[in-house]
Amino acid sequence: MDTTKRFRAARENFRWDDVAKLAYKQEGSAPFKDISRQVLFEEPSLGCQLRYFEMQPRGYSTLERHEHVHAVMILRGHGTCLVGDEVRRVKPRDLITIPRMTWQQFRADEAEAMGFLCMVNQARDKPQLPSADDLDALRRNRRIADFLDAAHHD
Amino acid sequence: MDTTKRFRAARENFRWDDVAKLAYKQEGSAPFKDISRQVLFEEPSLGCQLRYFEMQPRGYSTLERHEHVHAVMILRGHGTCLVGDEVRRVKPRDLITIPRMTWQQFRADEAEAMGFLCMVNQARDKPQLPSADDLDALRRNRRIADFLDAAHHD
Repeated sequence: MDTTKRFRAARENFRWDDVAKLAYKQEGSAPFKDISRQVLFEEPSLGCQLRYFEMQPRGYSTLERHEHVHAVMILRGHGTCLVGDEVRRVKPRDLITIPRMTWQQFRADEAEAMGFLCMVNQARDKPQLPSADDLDALRRNRRIADFLDAAHHD
Repeated sequence: MDTTKRFRAARENFRWDDVAKLAYKQEGSAPFKDISRQVLFEEPSLGCQLRYFEMQPRGYSTLERHEHVHAVMILRGHGTCLVGDEVRRVKPRDLITIPRMTWQQFRADEAEAMGFLCMVNQARDKPQLPSADDLDALRRNRRIADFLDAAHHD
């Protein structure tokens, strides 16, 4: 794999030449389901990476927050995302900015995979998971409670 | 326009809520044709911008080079691009890394618009245009000469 090659062709099904399909994160480190990670660009002089995350139908990312900012564009499929106190439906090419220390989670619909690009600093802090108190606070918002229940955190 | 909003929906025809469609660069500053620019993300803490450039059919970007690096993903349409001494056909989701001080130009096919995402440092040097000698050197490569001729630099 060599993300510094000048030309890397797109292949079928949101794969690319010279881009490895990686585990989303270490198994057991946090709750998530059926999600993969591909690092598309990590040129040191840019200071940012561009990654592509893809969730299978009903798959979801980890509910987490961190000091660093995420800049997201949906690339395929439909789903729902939580950012702070907002739950929104998302579709291809929608843009989502995740501010610092803001709870976030993405979930694909049942019918199709959902994938998104995420621009992020190469040097960044480790994500934080919600405490039981954090989850209680989030669940006081009915839409968030419904979103969290639908993600099958079990 | 407010690129810091958390959610900015994609609209028809590769436009977005709260994203301005801008001139590619100042008129008369360099040769280009039928190309627009939209800045999708410019969050200061990221240090990078993500822009979307779109060329109408037969439109092209400026033939130029610079110290900063570009990380490009084609988002719509088909066309041809020059990077250094290589001329390549490109299609949606292809990835192109443009190294420092490397001649580059994108051109859309006749049949359709071509658009691409470009990740770039917020702080960056000004692009350089080719001298007559630079153009002569480029034209010694037959594929590059054909590419430059097809772009109608007149």
